[in-house]
Amino acid sequence: MACDPVILAAPGVRGLVPYQPGKPIEELERELGVTGAIKLASNENPYGPGAKAKAAAAAALAQMERYPDGGGFALKRALAHRLAVSERQITLGNGSNDVLELIARTFLCPGETALCDEHAFAAYAISVRGIGAHMIQVPSRAYAHDLDAMAHALSPSVRMVFLANPNNPTGTWFGREELAGFLAAVPASTIVVLDEAYLEYVTEPDYPDGCGFLARHPNLVVVRTFSKIHGLAGLRVGYAVSDPALAELMNRLRQPFNVNIVAQAAAVAALADKAHVERMRAVNAADRATLAAALRDHGLGVLPSVGNFLCVEVGDAARLYEALLRQGVIVRPLKPYGMTAHLRITVGRPEENARLLRALADIMRAA
Amino acid sequence: MACDPVILAAPGVRGLVPYQPGKPIEELERELGVTGAIKLASNENPYGPGAKAKAAAAAALAQMERYPDGGGFALKRALAHRLAVSERQITLGNGSNDVLELIARTFLCPGETALCDEHAFAAYAISVRGIGAHMIQVPSRAYAHDLDAMAHALSPSVRMVFLANPNNPTGTWFGREELAGFLAAVPASTIVVLDEAYLEYVTEPDYPDGCGFLARHPNLVVVRTFSKIHGLAGLRVGYAVSDPALAELMNRLRQPFNVNIVAQAAAVAALADKAHVERMRAVNAADRATLAAALRDHGLGVLPSVGNFLCVEVGDAARLYEALLRQGVIVRPLKPYGMTAHLRITVGRPEENARLLRALADIMRAA
Repeated sequence: MACDPVILAAPGVRGLVPYQPGKPIEELERELGVTGAIKLASNENPYGPGAKAKAAAAAALAQMERYPDGGGFALKRALAHRLAVSERQITLGNGSNDVLELIARTFLCPGETALCDEHAFAAYAISVRGIGAHMIQVPSRAYAHDLDAMAHALSPSVRMVFLANPNNPTGTWFGREELAGFLAAVPASTIVVLDEAYLEYVTEPDYPDGCGFLARHPNLVVVRTFSKIHGLAGLRVGYAVSDPALAELMNRLRQPFNVNIVAQAAAVAALADKAHVERMRAVNAADRATLAAALRDHGLGVLPSVGNFLCVEVGDAARLYEALLRQGVIVRPLKPYGMTAHLRITVGRPEENARLLRALADIMRAA
Repeated sequence: MACDPVILAAPGVRGLVPYQPGKPIEELERELGVTGAIKLASNENPYGPGAKAKAAAAAALAQMERYPDGGGFALKRALAHRLAVSERQITLGNGSNDVLELIARTFLCPGETALCDEHAFAAYAISVRGIGAHMIQVPSRAYAHDLDAMAHALSPSVRMVFLANPNNPTGTWFGREELAGFLAAVPASTIVVLDEAYLEYVTEPDYPDGCGFLARHPNLVVVRTFSKIHGLAGLRVGYAVSDPALAELMNRLRQPFNVNIVAQAAAVAALADKAHVERMRAVNAADRATLAAALRDHGLGVLPSVGNFLCVEVGDAARLYEALLRQGVIVRPLKPYGMTAHLRITVGRPEENARLLRALADIMRAA
């Protein structure tokens, strides 16, 4: 190409650094010749979905040549029923990443500004910067959202705020009063995006359900996913719950067939399978406690987490990450989050957690 | 909400009219109480994918709790091999709709201008207008792209041109010389998007394979899909082939997990199943000829089509569309394309085509 093709790109794209997913097992095996590797890097549910969701996904394949229902009728109806909201309040996405991007593209213009925590999920900043808008990152307090500082950072030029409760990758959370106080401080013309991807894992009594704040705060958009406790990350389905007027605007921009038929069918079934969700919540809480205790026994610092992952202070995280890769264990380095001393480790099945701990012990012994 | 929420939306969203998908069968059955309805409205492959793609899709469900391979390693390798291009030239999308939107968002800014044919696929204009850019529609010539008129409409402010070959919804196409002449007229700083969604159905010897023009025209982006002849519309997978530099820019903006695991696995298998594609091409050509002849016998005008659908001049298309719905037959009215006298009818299985023809005969007899 005669000219530098970057000049053909929109300004938001010119400096954009894409999201770095957790290394796929196959990639590790190709690159290092390791076999039987395990992945504790992407906060998936290691037990997968329940039998009902699996059966619904398999049944949906019978229609794979047909376009999905662009209106998402059955899934919206199931969500509306479960959440006691109207179907008109729901926007479906190809994973919550798609929903987050839709929100940014619907309500932010190039040159405008959004806020998030300094250790917030990278997809927020990528969605904002991708359209040529700016993301201001507000310093955390002990690796948790500092909602007071975020409220002080509000100004007429801040059009959108991203909150994550609990936060990924730190695992920290905030309570009902804190959320209420923050929402009260936000002008009605600023959109508040509340990402609750890990909500179903949380057992703390003071943890707020964001949907309970929608009636008082029509500028609030709650984002959830079927990729975590529901175990459907590979199928891609997430959703937003908001005021119907905001949902109508987002749905204008939504690709008509953004949620595939397998995902829609499996999500409907997963939502109905309350027993599986409850079992996963209990198993995760127990396994998380066991893994955290074992990591602390190794002398590592473990941030308190209410999700299905632990944020662990390990010293030279890049070095430990590489050493674990050579042992066939994939975890997540947090350098992209400005945390060079931490690794994020998904709570796996007991045998996976045990393998991680053995690998860690071997590496520490050799050091 | 105290203020009009539309003022919160980005300018491109404020006037945006979303895509109207073909009516789902379930929706028709809910609304009109019809049972056993058939759908010839969305240009799906009525025979579905081959056995290999079905088996690969089913096998992929075993990993549904795991995020897809964000790099699309296996699918890109298979496409690169088949198309004799590099993996670095490929951008994967959640259907070609996602690819089209990615192209617009990567290379167009709010206020800039793109061109397409007046009867072009609605997704082009929605992708362009959704970011606040303008779409100029160039009048067709006998329902086909007028490439001379499009070349005359080029100007420094036109940053992107959309071509579809064959065109949906008209079914018309252009030849190798015409494409070469048009590409030669386009400045290097204008992106040409060539949508070849129906390419595999075309048997005309003079039909050009867009990938053959990439080496001479690094501003060309060829877009294809697994939703049509491959029979995977419900799974959502499409792709672009372009200069690696353009692909790198689009991949910055691409959502990391935009193509789900089932879609990736099924697409790899579908691509390898050349026999199924050849069979589908032959079956479609025969069924299309039979259906076109029968429609002409009813006194209807049928545009020559090289796709898996026919564009049929019926007089009052809205009225015939409604009458067919009441008979349980869904076709596509083309009013959104400015064609109030035409219906687009997908070539179905012989029994579906026969049912359409019976319904048509009944309606005409009653009129």
